[in-house]
Amino acid sequence: MEQVRIGIIGMGNMGSSHAKNIFDGHIKGAILTAICDERQDRIQWAENMFGNKVQCFNSYDDFFANADIDGVIIATPHYDHPPLAIKAFKRGLHVLSEKPAGVYTKNVREMNEAAVESGKVFGMMFNQRTNPLYQKVRELISSGELGEIKRTNWIITDWYRSQSYYDSGGWRATWSGEGGGVMLNQSPHQLDLWQWTTGLMPKRVRAFSGFGKYHDIEVEDDVTAYVEYENGATGVFITSTGEAPGTNRFEIVGDCGKLVVEDHKLTFSRLRQSEREFNRTYKGGFGEPECWKIDIPIHGKTTEHIGIMNNWVDAILHGAELLAPGEEGIKSLAISNAVYLSSWTDDWVEMPIDEDLYYEKLQEKIEQSTFKKEDNNDITLNVSGTH
Amino acid sequence: MEQVRIGIIGMGNMGSSHAKNIFDGHIKGAILTAICDERQDRIQWAENMFGNKVQCFNSYDDFFANADIDGVIIATPHYDHPPLAIKAFKRGLHVLSEKPAGVYTKNVREMNEAAVESGKVFGMMFNQRTNPLYQKVRELISSGELGEIKRTNWIITDWYRSQSYYDSGGWRATWSGEGGGVMLNQSPHQLDLWQWTTGLMPKRVRAFSGFGKYHDIEVEDDVTAYVEYENGATGVFITSTGEAPGTNRFEIVGDCGKLVVEDHKLTFSRLRQSEREFNRTYKGGFGEPECWKIDIPIHGKTTEHIGIMNNWVDAILHGAELLAPGEEGIKSLAISNAVYLSSWTDDWVEMPIDEDLYYEKLQEKIEQSTFKKEDNNDITLNVSGTH
Repeated sequence: MEQVRIGIIGMGNMGSSHAKNIFDGHIKGAILTAICDERQDRIQWAENMFGNKVQCFNSYDDFFANADIDGVIIATPHYDHPPLAIKAFKRGLHVLSEKPAGVYTKNVREMNEAAVESGKVFGMMFNQRTNPLYQKVRELISSGELGEIKRTNWIITDWYRSQSYYDSGGWRATWSGEGGGVMLNQSPHQLDLWQWTTGLMPKRVRAFSGFGKYHDIEVEDDVTAYVEYENGATGVFITSTGEAPGTNRFEIVGDCGKLVVEDHKLTFSRLRQSEREFNRTYKGGFGEPECWKIDIPIHGKTTEHIGIMNNWVDAILHGAELLAPGEEGIKSLAISNAVYLSSWTDDWVEMPIDEDLYYEKLQEKIEQSTFKKEDNNDITLNVSGTH
Repeated sequence: MEQVRIGIIGMGNMGSSHAKNIFDGHIKGAILTAICDERQDRIQWAENMFGNKVQCFNSYDDFFANADIDGVIIATPHYDHPPLAIKAFKRGLHVLSEKPAGVYTKNVREMNEAAVESGKVFGMMFNQRTNPLYQKVRELISSGELGEIKRTNWIITDWYRSQSYYDSGGWRATWSGEGGGVMLNQSPHQLDLWQWTTGLMPKRVRAFSGFGKYHDIEVEDDVTAYVEYENGATGVFITSTGEAPGTNRFEIVGDCGKLVVEDHKLTFSRLRQSEREFNRTYKGGFGEPECWKIDIPIHGKTTEHIGIMNNWVDAILHGAELLAPGEEGIKSLAISNAVYLSSWTDDWVEMPIDEDLYYEKLQEKIEQSTFKKEDNNDITLNVSGTH
């Protein structure tokens, strides 16, 4: 194969942006050959934009049966990611899915199994993994510079949303339409980076969520989650769409110092002697290891969605290693699911979570949801404004 | 009265420092007339330092019966603060107590009642209330500049202690000797400032503590506490003696913006329109209120212990308003007690706490304590190195 023929499902904000990038030649070795959207106005938009060089489909079945494609990018509402990916793998297509991997891990696991079975290249649109800042955080941890992790803390509240944002789509911030709120719509990137940079998944979670706390919505718009890791480390993740201005500060404390990411800068407070060793050997009472505050230089630019698409196509054509393998989407989603489950049950949640219990609880929420998906297919695919 | 005659109980680090400050004339209207310590070497130190101008007592009873004093400063181990203060009030003395107010609120409440009954001036050594930085935080909140509080977050982990610190006194970090760890010894100032600056006490607390996590001690050296306030606001307080270098960052989010205290600076991110109003009236979907990032000027210097002592003496002589009324010591202690109770019971704790339950649980810990107070009276009063 010299060129990967790509189809995109979902012509909302993200999908149409990806389509234009491929159409305009920004993705090496990729060609846009098909798009699919159930909304006629989005089909019209695509026809105007791409002319007759791109096949346009207004039904998933038609698309999967007749599109001339090798790979598909899924940019639909959250719930549709796993079933569409599974369809694609069954047709022998490579898949790149928008985040989150899905709404519940139960069917994301099925998606991952289908991916493995297909042997196709499966990527997840974790575009923030292309940010050299977070790549550096990951490198400083995986290389051992920071030492064993003791505590993580991410305050990520710069997702301010007004009521008018939520009112702009009936599916927004509903259990049946989106499947969640700030944890599922705004924070998946940070949830992914939290586990990806540290290499740690929580062992158990105790979370506290405010549902419709700052807005007239049924899902959560304010969350504080406390986690414990296998090695004894603890962590806190705080997110909200009700604060202005927000904070985005990620702190990781290790045996050899502290990393802080804030204001697009990475600071490493590096100990010359590990704390554990100092603790064992120092005899002076008060005192602490010598510490150097270092501004870590960051090289390169974040390549975002284009970077992820190039990497995915490169993997298809030349076997390049994926920066964001699709199978890893389940990790951040599992944390997210655990946060909901803990908030709903007002109790600890051990990880891996009880997927059936989560699915069952989610169904209860969907049944009580103010938004009924079948009411209006027209707006279920409207992802404009999401990231 | 033209001059307040002061006696100090406890000639450890703090007590001897206070004694010198008064003796050297740094406290206007105060004269040091007596000290008390059960340790002979501390009596010797005081005799050498102050000559025959100051009465020295090596028993509490003798001190209370015979010292020529109008007021007493209590700088003994934590457990002794309430009983000694009660003795002093019964003798009609003014009292200034070192922090914390005590170890458990049950007897601190009795101390407060004795204070009221005596009609004497009762102060608490919350010297960090003299810091103009935190005074400014309090002023910006109480004046309404920040608007209604939504979230508080204090990461105060710059209490690094090595094992040799804990090994320097058998009473240190024991249930029977100190009554607790980082919450009771290192963090009382921040617990006080947390409630004092915001004017908010938690309604309920869910806390997670590591006991002897980083050190060979029986009490906690690592704590994450989540709290909820009556108005729906949430908060997190994180403290530890096992991290190097630590963090000291206090963030308070309100309806009109955000305050951050870090690196001895106060930043106010001020909204031109309150978030709640913006949320109600804005119709544009994405968007947020205009925000100004302001470096708040801080005037004056922190006067610390000398400031608190001057204020207390001024209150005795001229009825000045106390910056840190003794009765307020129970507030931070109640938060601290709630954190222990929640950690021990692995459950929510509603405030005000069940004081009897806390007392009972504490007694269990004391019974199992590795340090037996009666073993060595000599070191029970050694507060060197504490703040």
